[in-house]
Amino acid sequence: MIELLNLPSEAPYKKLETLYHQALKHNQRGVEAISISSYDSLSGEVESRFVNLKYIQGNEWIFFSNYSSPKASQFASHDQISVLIHWPALNTQIRLKAKIQKTSPEFSDLHFKNRSKEKNALAISSAQSQPVTSFDAVKERFQSTLASMTSDQERPEYWGGYSFTPYYFEFWEGHENRLNKRQVFSIQEGSWIAQLLQP
Amino acid sequence: MIELLNLPSEAPYKKLETLYHQALKHNQRGVEAISISSYDSLSGEVESRFVNLKYIQGNEWIFFSNYSSPKASQFASHDQISVLIHWPALNTQIRLKAKIQKTSPEFSDLHFKNRSKEKNALAISSAQSQPVTSFDAVKERFQSTLASMTSDQERPEYWGGYSFTPYYFEFWEGHENRLNKRQVFSIQEGSWIAQLLQP
Repeated sequence: MIELLNLPSEAPYKKLETLYHQALKHNQRGVEAISISSYDSLSGEVESRFVNLKYIQGNEWIFFSNYSSPKASQFASHDQISVLIHWPALNTQIRLKAKIQKTSPEFSDLHFKNRSKEKNALAISSAQSQPVTSFDAVKERFQSTLASMTSDQERPEYWGGYSFTPYYFEFWEGHENRLNKRQVFSIQEGSWIAQLLQP
Repeated sequence: MIELLNLPSEAPYKKLETLYHQALKHNQRGVEAISISSYDSLSGEVESRFVNLKYIQGNEWIFFSNYSSPKASQFASHDQISVLIHWPALNTQIRLKAKIQKTSPEFSDLHFKNRSKEKNALAISSAQSQPVTSFDAVKERFQSTLASMTSDQERPEYWGGYSFTPYYFEFWEGHENRLNKRQVFSIQEGSWIAQLLQP
């Protein structure tokens, strides 16, 4: 589930809201799983991974991550990302281009306080994307962190939110014979301009 | 469906083959839909979209596209891409990094000859990703192209295959409390080296 809060009233957000509620109605599995692709300026490589989108609040799309992970350093050096949402139950994909930045520490604190103790134990215990000798070592570190956590456990500095704001939307609807419908919204002089693209 | 032909016998391909057959067994919808992310050297933007993977032949992963599309010019100027495969039925994602190039014209001809007339009509009639005034205009151009096609219709030069060869695999398996299993294979001095990553 994604929490939608105070969405803008412009056309791409209206369309997004309608599709999201249709996806829920069709019991779309993993409706909050979105792919984030970033550019690593040092290696010259594009990288992609799924994250769980938690909130769309105004025009800010928010998920949480480890701030010492490879994607964090990619966002820091190249703040433009692309995002893909795929809801096969609707035969629809949404393609976004966006700029990304960290959320405020206060926002991250609030989300951390409201998460399960188990998820927070993992956030604390795991040096995301660092090599490890065995999966057992991961589980042991998780269990010992969980056992040592206090009831008012503080958020570690190396974990928190990211917020991205799209400047480009494509709504792609699959149709027979590849006669797909593609509607694009891009910002021009502060307003969203709609356009159709050939399939 | 993806056609698997003469897969290499190395570990990442063995794992891929096992997972693919599990995904089919679990009736994974859209098993061939993969996301391809590329870098646009001119605009400095990352872009992502889904394509249908048709073949994995040896270590070449093959799909088809319009050669005048935005992604085609991105591949031409920056031949490194990232790829995501998501099979929610197995709670598994596969992350790849790869180098991409066009397939031979002969390979594209062969695939074109074996496709449905309707799909080929769309490949011929659509200037992929170019603006269009209405969806009716798209359908009209498709219908008139379909009507004018000969039985030995030639492949247009602006349509054909892309082949990418991964140099990095991550097999990501989701588990409770984010205790996800992450197994990476990367090429070092010509051999695939396995490693576990922290979740």
